[in-house]
Amino acid sequence: MSERPADDAGERPASGRPAGERPESGRRRPGRRPGSADTRGQILAAARETFSEKGFDKATIRGIARQAGVDPALVHHYFASKEGMFVAAMELPVNPDEVIPMIMNGPREEIGERLTRFVLTMTSEAGARQPVLALVRTAMTNDRVVSMVREFLTHAIVNRVAEGLGIPAIRMEVAFAQLFGVVLMRYVVKLEPLASAEIEELVELLAPTIQRYLDGS
Amino acid sequence: MSERPADDAGERPASGRPAGERPESGRRRPGRRPGSADTRGQILAAARETFSEKGFDKATIRGIARQAGVDPALVHHYFASKEGMFVAAMELPVNPDEVIPMIMNGPREEIGERLTRFVLTMTSEAGARQPVLALVRTAMTNDRVVSMVREFLTHAIVNRVAEGLGIPAIRMEVAFAQLFGVVLMRYVVKLEPLASAEIEELVELLAPTIQRYLDGS
Repeated sequence: MSERPADDAGERPASGRPAGERPESGRRRPGRRPGSADTRGQILAAARETFSEKGFDKATIRGIARQAGVDPALVHHYFASKEGMFVAAMELPVNPDEVIPMIMNGPREEIGERLTRFVLTMTSEAGARQPVLALVRTAMTNDRVVSMVREFLTHAIVNRVAEGLGIPAIRMEVAFAQLFGVVLMRYVVKLEPLASAEIEELVELLAPTIQRYLDGS
Repeated sequence: MSERPADDAGERPASGRPAGERPESGRRRPGRRPGSADTRGQILAAARETFSEKGFDKATIRGIARQAGVDPALVHHYFASKEGMFVAAMELPVNPDEVIPMIMNGPREEIGERLTRFVLTMTSEAGARQPVLALVRTAMTNDRVVSMVREFLTHAIVNRVAEGLGIPAIRMEVAFAQLFGVVLMRYVVKLEPLASAEIEELVELLAPTIQRYLDGS
Protein backbone atom coordinates (compact mmCIF):
# COMPACT_ATOMS: atom_id res chain seq x y z
CA MET A 1 0.00 0.00 0.00
CA SER A 2 1.38 3.39 -0.94
CA GLU A 3 0.96 6.76 0.75
CA ARG A 4 -2.13 8.57 -0.46
CA PRO A 5 -1.17 11.64 -2.44
CA ALA A 6 -1.94 14.83 -0.58
CA ASP A 7 -4.08 16.22 -3.39
CA ASP A 8 -6.46 13.31 -3.04
CA ALA A 9 -8.48 15.59 -0.79
CA GLY A 10 -9.37 17.50 -3.93
CA GLU A 11 -11.82 14.74 -4.84
CA ARG A 12 -14.03 15.73 -2.00
CA PRO A 13 -17.29 17.64 -2.45
CA ALA A 14 -16.76 21.28 -3.41
CA SER A 15 -18.73 22.51 -0.41
CA GLY A 16 -15.81 24.27 1.23
CA ARG A 17 -15.10 22.00 4.15
CA PRO A 18 -15.29 18.24 3.43
CA ALA A 19 -18.73 16.96 4.32
CA GLY A 20 -18.99 15.42 7.78
CA GLU A 21 -15.48 16.34 8.76
CA ARG A 22 -15.07 18.75 11.61
CA PRO A 23 -12.24 21.23 11.34
CA GLU A 24 -11.40 21.14 15.05
CA SER A 25 -10.50 17.46 14.65
CA GLY A 26 -6.91 17.72 13.51
CA ARG A 27 -6.74 14.07 12.42
CA ARG A 28 -5.47 13.29 8.96
CA ARG A 29 -5.08 9.89 7.42
CA PRO A 30 -1.31 9.62 7.12
CA GLY A 31 -1.09 6.53 4.90
CA ARG A 32 -2.55 3.14 4.25
CA ARG A 33 -0.20 0.79 6.09
CA PRO A 34 -2.54 -1.92 7.47
CA GLY A 35 -1.76 -2.96 11.01
CA SER A 36 0.20 0.20 11.77
CA ALA A 37 -0.26 1.89 15.12
CA ASP A 38 -2.78 4.23 13.51
CA THR A 39 -4.86 1.55 11.78
CA ARG A 40 -7.88 2.47 13.86
CA GLY A 41 -7.42 6.13 12.90
CA GLN A 42 -7.14 5.15 9.22
CA ILE A 43 -10.36 3.16 9.42
CA LEU A 44 -12.14 6.10 11.09
CA ALA A 45 -10.90 8.56 8.46
CA ALA A 46 -12.11 6.17 5.73
CA ALA A 47 -15.43 5.81 7.58
CA ARG A 48 -15.89 9.59 7.77
CA GLU A 49 -15.23 9.91 4.07
CA THR A 50 -17.46 6.97 3.11
CA PHE A 51 -20.37 7.99 5.38
CA SER A 52 -20.34 11.56 4.13
CA GLU A 53 -20.12 10.48 0.48
CA LYS A 54 -22.55 7.55 0.48
CA GLY A 55 -24.67 8.26 3.55
CA PHE A 56 -25.20 5.84 6.41
CA ASP A 57 -27.42 3.30 4.62
CA LYS A 58 -25.22 2.69 1.59
CA ALA A 59 -21.91 2.64 3.43
CA THR A 60 -20.64 -0.88 4.11
CA ILE A 61 -17.93 -2.23 6.40
CA ARG A 62 -16.38 -3.87 3.32
CA GLY A 63 -16.32 -0.55 1.44
CA ILE A 64 -14.81 1.30 4.37
CA ALA A 65 -12.14 -1.42 4.74
CA ARG A 66 -11.30 -1.06 1.04
CA GLN A 67 -11.12 2.71 1.39
CA ALA A 68 -8.79 2.36 4.40
CA GLY A 69 -6.72 -0.30 2.63
CA VAL A 70 -7.24 -2.88 5.38
CA ASP A 71 -8.92 -6.25 5.71
CA PRO A 72 -12.67 -6.13 6.60
CA ALA A 73 -11.91 -8.52 9.48
CA LEU A 74 -9.74 -5.81 10.99
CA VAL A 75 -12.63 -3.34 10.81
CA HIS A 76 -14.82 -5.88 12.60
CA HIS A 77 -12.07 -6.30 15.17
CA TYR A 78 -12.21 -2.60 16.03
CA PHE A 79 -15.94 -1.92 15.60
CA ALA A 80 -18.79 -4.30 16.45
CA SER A 81 -21.30 -2.69 14.08
CA LYS A 82 -21.77 -0.02 11.44
CA GLU A 83 -23.56 2.06 14.09
CA GLY A 84 -20.53 1.73 16.38
CA MET A 85 -18.22 2.79 13.58
CA PHE A 86 -20.38 5.83 12.80
CA VAL A 87 -20.39 6.85 16.47
CA ALA A 88 -16.59 6.58 16.63
CA ALA A 89 -16.06 8.32 13.27
CA MET A 90 -18.25 11.29 14.26
CA GLU A 91 -16.85 11.22 17.82
CA LEU A 92 -20.37 10.99 19.22
CA PRO A 93 -20.50 10.66 23.00
CA VAL A 94 -22.76 7.60 23.14
CA ASN A 95 -23.45 4.47 21.13
CA PRO A 96 -27.14 3.69 20.57
CA ASP A 97 -26.19 -0.01 20.57
CA GLU A 98 -25.42 0.41 24.26
CA VAL A 99 -27.78 3.19 25.30
CA ILE A 100 -31.04 1.95 23.80
CA PRO A 101 -31.15 -1.33 25.75
CA MET A 102 -30.33 0.65 28.90
CA ILE A 103 -33.26 3.02 28.25
CA MET A 104 -35.63 0.19 27.26
CA ASN A 105 -34.88 -1.90 30.35
CA GLY A 106 -36.72 -0.90 33.50
CA PRO A 107 -40.38 -0.07 34.09
CA ARG A 108 -42.19 1.03 30.93
CA GLU A 109 -44.09 3.72 32.87
CA GLU A 110 -40.78 5.43 33.70
CA ILE A 111 -39.23 5.34 30.24
CA GLY A 112 -40.00 9.04 29.65
CA GLU A 113 -38.12 9.95 32.79
CA ARG A 114 -35.15 7.64 32.00
CA LEU A 115 -34.75 8.95 28.47
CA THR A 116 -35.16 12.61 29.47
CA ARG A 117 -32.69 12.37 32.34
CA PHE A 118 -30.19 10.49 30.17
CA VAL A 119 -30.26 13.11 27.38
CA LEU A 120 -30.02 16.04 29.78
CA THR A 121 -27.21 14.48 31.82
CA MET A 122 -25.22 13.46 28.76
CA THR A 123 -25.51 16.89 27.10
CA SER A 124 -24.64 18.69 30.34
CA GLU A 125 -21.00 17.69 29.74
CA ALA A 126 -19.36 20.01 27.21
CA GLY A 127 -17.08 17.27 25.90
CA ALA A 128 -20.06 15.06 25.09
CA ARG A 129 -22.19 17.85 23.67
CA GLN A 130 -19.64 19.49 21.38
CA PRO A 131 -19.25 16.75 18.74
CA VAL A 132 -23.03 16.42 18.55
CA LEU A 133 -23.48 20.16 18.04
CA ALA A 134 -20.60 20.24 15.54
CA LEU A 135 -22.37 17.58 13.48
CA VAL A 136 -25.66 19.47 13.72
CA ARG A 137 -24.00 22.68 12.56
CA THR A 138 -22.50 20.96 9.53
CA ALA A 139 -25.79 19.20 8.77
CA MET A 140 -27.68 22.52 8.80
CA THR A 141 -25.86 23.71 5.71
CA ASN A 142 -24.79 20.54 3.93
CA ASP A 143 -27.27 18.25 2.17
CA ARG A 144 -24.99 15.22 2.16
CA VAL A 145 -24.33 15.46 5.86
CA VAL A 146 -28.00 15.96 6.64
CA SER A 147 -28.85 12.79 4.66
CA MET A 148 -26.23 10.86 6.56
CA VAL A 149 -27.57 12.14 9.89
CA ARG A 150 -31.16 11.38 8.86
CA GLU A 151 -30.30 7.80 7.92
CA PHE A 152 -28.35 7.24 11.12
CA LEU A 153 -31.13 8.68 13.30
CA THR A 154 -33.76 6.62 11.49
CA HIS A 155 -31.94 3.28 11.65
CA ALA A 156 -29.89 3.51 14.81
CA ILE A 157 -32.39 5.33 17.03
CA VAL A 158 -35.95 6.04 15.85
CA ASN A 159 -36.86 2.70 14.29
CA ARG A 160 -35.20 0.64 17.00
CA VAL A 161 -36.96 2.41 19.83
CA ALA A 162 -40.31 2.53 18.00
CA GLU A 163 -40.14 -1.19 17.15
CA GLY A 164 -38.93 -2.10 20.63
CA LEU A 165 -41.84 -0.24 22.21
CA GLY A 166 -44.41 -1.17 19.55
CA ILE A 167 -45.31 2.45 18.78
CA PRO A 168 -45.51 4.39 15.47
CA ALA A 169 -42.13 5.91 14.51
CA ILE A 170 -43.62 9.41 14.41
CA ARG A 171 -44.16 9.31 18.19
CA MET A 172 -40.46 8.67 18.75
CA GLU A 173 -39.65 11.44 16.26
CA VAL A 174 -41.64 14.09 18.10
CA ALA A 175 -40.14 12.91 21.42
CA PHE A 176 -36.69 13.26 19.86
CA ALA A 177 -37.67 16.71 18.51
CA GLN A 178 -38.68 17.82 22.02
CA LEU A 179 -35.40 16.73 23.60
CA PHE A 180 -33.28 17.99 20.73
CA GLY A 181 -35.12 21.35 20.74
CA VAL A 182 -34.45 21.74 24.46
CA VAL A 183 -30.74 20.95 24.05
CA LEU A 184 -30.52 23.51 21.23
CA MET A 185 -32.33 26.24 23.20
CA ARG A 186 -30.29 25.45 26.33
CA TYR A 187 -26.80 25.24 24.83
CA VAL A 188 -26.84 27.08 21.48
CA VAL A 189 -29.49 29.80 21.81
CA LYS A 190 -28.94 29.88 25.60
CA LEU A 191 -32.46 31.05 26.40
CA GLU A 192 -32.84 31.90 30.07
CA PRO A 193 -34.04 30.53 32.46
CA LEU A 194 -33.83 27.29 30.42
CA ALA A 195 -30.04 27.49 30.04
CA SER A 196 -29.45 27.68 33.81
CA ALA A 197 -32.21 25.32 34.92
CA GLU A 198 -31.32 22.26 36.99
CA ILE A 199 -31.60 18.90 35.24
CA GLU A 200 -34.22 17.72 37.73
CA GLU A 201 -36.45 20.74 37.09
CA LEU A 202 -36.33 19.96 33.38
CA VAL A 203 -36.96 16.24 33.94
CA GLU A 204 -40.11 17.15 35.86
CA LEU A 205 -41.27 19.40 33.04
CA LEU A 206 -40.33 17.19 30.08
CA ALA A 207 -40.63 13.57 31.24
CA PRO A 208 -44.46 13.47 31.14
CA THR A 209 -44.32 14.71 27.52
CA ILE A 210 -41.85 12.01 26.48
CA GLN A 211 -43.80 9.39 28.44
CA ARG A 212 -47.03 10.31 26.64
CA TYR A 213 -45.38 10.04 23.21
CA LEU A 214 -43.72 6.71 24.02
CA ASP A 215 -46.83 5.21 25.61
CA GLY A 216 -48.31 4.96 22.13
CA SER A 217 -51.75 5.99 20.94
CA MET B 1 -26.09 63.30 2.88
CA SER B 2 -23.41 61.79 0.73
CA GLU B 3 -23.18 58.36 -0.84
CA ARG B 4 -21.64 55.83 1.50
CA PRO B 5 -18.30 54.69 0.19
CA ALA B 6 -18.37 51.13 -1.08
CA ASP B 7 -15.54 50.01 1.16
CA ASP B 8 -17.61 50.85 4.23
CA ALA B 9 -18.57 47.19 4.21
CA GLY B 10 -15.04 46.45 5.35
CA GLU B 11 -15.92 47.71 8.83
CA ARG B 12 -18.13 44.72 9.38
CA PRO B 13 -17.20 41.78 11.63
CA ALA B 14 -14.49 39.60 10.12
CA SER B 15 -16.66 36.49 10.28
CA GLY B 16 -16.80 35.98 6.52
CA ARG B 17 -20.35 36.97 5.77
CA PRO B 18 -21.70 39.98 7.70
CA ALA B 19 -23.55 38.76 10.76
CA GLY B 20 -27.29 38.49 10.30
CA GLU B 21 -27.21 39.25 6.62
CA ARG B 22 -28.30 36.48 4.33
CA PRO B 23 -26.44 36.13 1.03
CA GLU B 24 -29.58 35.27 -0.96
CA SER B 25 -30.94 38.73 -0.15
CA GLY B 26 -29.36 40.78 -2.89
CA ARG B 27 -30.25 44.09 -1.24
CA ARG B 28 -27.52 46.65 -0.81
CA ARG B 29 -27.86 50.03 0.73
CA PRO B 30 -27.26 52.30 -2.24
CA GLY B 31 -26.92 55.63 -0.47
CA ARG B 32 -28.28 57.82 2.28
CA ARG B 33 -30.73 60.07 0.51
CA PRO B 34 -33.60 60.47 3.03
CA GLY B 35 -37.05 60.27 1.49
CA SER B 36 -35.79 58.57 -1.66
CA ALA B 37 -37.85 55.74 -3.14
CA ASP B 38 -35.67 53.24 -1.30
CA THR B 39 -35.81 54.91 2.12
CA ARG B 40 -37.53 51.88 3.60
CA GLY B 41 -34.79 49.65 2.16
CA GLN B 42 -32.10 51.92 3.61
CA ILE B 43 -33.72 51.77 7.02
CA LEU B 44 -33.91 47.98 6.81
CA ALA B 45 -30.26 47.68 5.78
CA ALA B 46 -29.30 49.94 8.69
CA ALA B 47 -31.51 47.85 10.99
CA ARG B 48 -29.83 44.61 9.89
CA GLU B 49 -26.42 46.11 10.52
CA THR B 50 -27.37 47.60 13.87
CA PHE B 51 -29.19 44.50 15.16
CA SER B 52 -26.33 42.21 14.22
CA GLU B 53 -23.72 44.53 15.74
CA LYS B 54 -25.53 45.56 18.93
CA GLY B 55 -28.07 42.77 19.36
CA PHE B 56 -31.80 43.30 19.72
CA ASP B 57 -31.85 44.82 23.21
CA LYS B 58 -29.26 47.54 22.68
CA ALA B 59 -30.42 48.57 19.22
CA THR B 60 -32.60 51.69 19.23
CA ILE B 61 -34.87 53.24 16.63
CA ARG B 62 -32.85 56.45 17.04
CA GLY B 63 -29.58 54.61 16.39
CA ILE B 64 -30.95 52.85 13.35
CA ALA B 65 -32.26 56.17 11.99
CA ARG B 66 -28.81 57.71 12.47
CA GLN B 67 -27.19 54.73 10.76
CA ALA B 68 -29.61 55.07 7.83
CA GLY B 69 -29.16 58.86 7.73
CA VAL B 70 -32.88 59.55 8.15
CA ASP B 71 -35.09 61.21 10.73
CA PRO B 72 -36.30 58.90 13.56
CA ALA B 73 -39.86 60.01 12.78
CA LEU B 74 -39.48 58.46 9.36
CA VAL B 75 -38.48 55.15 10.94
CA HIS B 76 -41.58 55.32 13.14
CA HIS B 77 -43.61 56.07 10.04
CA TYR B 78 -42.53 52.81 8.42
CA PHE B 79 -42.31 50.55 11.49
CA ALA B 80 -44.60 50.63 14.51
CA SER B 81 -42.10 49.00 16.88
CA LYS B 82 -38.56 47.70 17.21
CA GLU B 83 -40.02 44.17 16.99
CA GLY B 84 -41.74 45.08 13.73
CA MET B 85 -38.52 46.49 12.34
CA PHE B 86 -36.61 43.35 13.32
CA VAL B 87 -39.22 41.17 11.62
CA ALA B 88 -38.98 43.23 8.43
CA ALA B 89 -35.18 43.43 8.52
CA MET B 90 -34.82 39.63 8.90
CA GLU B 91 -37.70 39.05 6.45
CA LEU B 92 -39.48 36.93 9.03
CA PRO B 93 -42.90 35.69 7.92
CA VAL B 94 -44.85 36.86 10.96
CA ASN B 95 -44.82 39.70 13.44
CA PRO B 96 -45.23 38.66 17.08
CA ASP B 97 -46.97 42.03 17.67
CA GLU B 98 -49.82 40.67 15.54
CA VAL B 99 -49.62 36.93 16.12
CA ILE B 100 -49.40 36.82 19.91
CA PRO B 101 -52.74 38.57 20.54
CA MET B 102 -54.30 36.25 17.95
CA ILE B 103 -52.98 33.18 19.79
CA MET B 104 -53.87 34.57 23.23
CA ASN B 105 -57.46 35.39 22.28
CA GLY B 106 -59.89 32.50 22.35
CA PRO B 107 -60.47 29.80 24.95
CA ARG B 108 -57.47 29.22 27.20
CA GLU B 109 -58.03 25.44 27.11
CA GLU B 110 -57.44 25.48 23.34
CA ILE B 111 -54.31 27.64 23.30
CA GLY B 112 -52.06 24.60 22.76
CA GLU B 113 -54.02 23.66 19.68
CA ARG B 114 -54.11 27.23 18.31
CA LEU B 115 -50.36 27.76 18.74
CA THR B 116 -49.44 24.33 17.35
CA ARG B 117 -51.68 24.67 14.29
CA PHE B 118 -50.43 28.21 13.65
CA VAL B 119 -46.73 27.21 13.73
CA LEU B 120 -47.27 24.13 11.55
CA THR B 121 -49.42 25.98 9.02
CA MET B 122 -47.05 28.94 8.80
CA THR B 123 -43.96 26.77 8.34
CA SER B 124 -45.69 24.57 5.75
CA GLU B 125 -45.17 27.40 3.26
CA ALA B 126 -41.63 27.39 1.89
CA GLY B 127 -41.58 31.16 1.45
CA ALA B 128 -42.41 31.69 5.11
CA ARG B 129 -40.08 29.00 6.38
CA GLN B 130 -36.96 29.87 4.42
CA PRO B 131 -36.02 33.19 6.06
CA VAL B 132 -36.54 31.61 9.49
CA LEU B 133 -34.28 28.68 8.63
CA ALA B 134 -31.72 31.01 7.05
CA LEU B 135 -31.55 32.97 10.30
CA VAL B 136 -31.26 29.75 12.32
CA ARG B 137 -28.43 28.52 10.09
CA THR B 138 -26.51 31.76 10.55
CA ALA B 139 -27.20 31.77 14.28
CA MET B 140 -25.82 28.22 14.65
CA THR B 141 -22.33 29.36 13.74
CA ASN B 142 -22.27 33.04 14.67
CA ASP B 143 -22.25 34.23 18.27
CA ARG B 144 -23.44 37.74 17.50
CA VAL B 145 -26.40 36.49 15.52
CA VAL B 146 -27.32 33.97 18.17
CA SER B 147 -27.31 36.73 20.80
CA MET B 148 -29.55 38.84 18.62
CA VAL B 149 -31.94 35.91 18.08
CA ARG B 150 -31.94 35.08 21.81
CA GLU B 151 -32.81 38.65 22.76
CA PHE B 152 -35.56 38.86 20.16
CA LEU B 153 -37.08 35.52 21.21
CA THR B 154 -36.92 36.48 24.88
CA HIS B 155 -38.48 39.92 24.52
CA ALA B 156 -40.79 39.59 21.57
CA ILE B 157 -42.13 36.08 22.20
CA VAL B 158 -41.24 34.18 25.40
CA ASN B 159 -41.71 36.91 28.01
CA ARG B 160 -44.83 38.33 26.39
CA VAL B 161 -46.60 34.99 26.19
CA ALA B 162 -45.44 33.90 29.66
CA GLU B 163 -46.55 37.20 31.22
CA GLY B 164 -49.82 37.20 29.29
CA LEU B 165 -50.63 33.69 30.52
CA GLY B 166 -49.16 34.13 33.99
CA ILE B 167 -46.81 31.16 33.69
CA PRO B 168 -43.05 30.79 34.32
CA ALA B 169 -41.01 31.68 31.20
CA ILE B 170 -39.36 28.26 31.19
CA ARG B 171 -42.70 26.64 30.32
CA MET B 172 -43.02 28.78 27.20
CA GLU B 173 -39.38 27.98 26.36
CA VAL B 174 -39.88 24.21 26.40
CA ALA B 175 -43.10 24.63 24.38
CA PHE B 176 -41.14 26.68 21.85
CA ALA B 177 -38.38 24.02 21.88
CA GLN B 178 -40.94 21.33 21.06
CA LEU B 179 -42.40 23.22 18.10
CA PHE B 180 -39.02 24.40 16.84
CA GLY B 181 -37.61 20.86 17.15
CA VAL B 182 -40.49 19.49 15.10
CA VAL B 183 -40.03 22.12 12.38
CA LEU B 184 -36.31 21.32 12.24
CA MET B 185 -36.85 17.54 12.04
CA ARG B 186 -39.64 18.00 9.47
CA TYR B 187 -37.98 20.48 7.11
CA VAL B 188 -34.22 20.30 7.67
CA VAL B 189 -33.49 16.73 8.78
CA LYS B 190 -36.61 15.49 6.92
CA LEU B 191 -37.19 12.52 9.20
CA GLU B 192 -39.95 10.29 7.87
CA PRO B 193 -42.83 9.85 8.56
CA LEU B 194 -42.69 13.24 10.32
CA ALA B 195 -41.75 15.13 7.16
CA SER B 196 -44.79 13.86 5.23
CA ALA B 197 -47.31 13.88 8.07
CA GLU B 198 -50.48 15.93 7.72
CA ILE B 199 -50.72 19.06 9.86
CA GLU B 200 -53.79 17.73 11.65
CA GLU B 201 -52.04 14.49 12.64
CA LEU B 202 -49.26 16.55 14.17
CA VAL B 203 -51.68 18.91 15.90
CA GLU B 204 -53.30 15.90 17.56
CA LEU B 205 -49.91 14.62 18.71
CA LEU B 206 -48.37 17.95 19.81
CA ALA B 207 -51.23 20.18 21.01
CA PRO B 208 -51.71 18.35 24.37
CA THR B 209 -47.99 18.83 25.07
CA ILE B 210 -48.11 22.56 24.35
CA GLN B 211 -51.36 22.87 26.31
CA ARG B 212 -49.81 21.20 29.36
CA TYR B 213 -46.81 23.55 29.30
CA LEU B 214 -48.93 26.67 28.83
CA ASP B 215 -51.46 25.65 31.49
CA GLY B 216 -48.79 26.42 34.09
CA SER B 217 -47.76 24.37 37.07
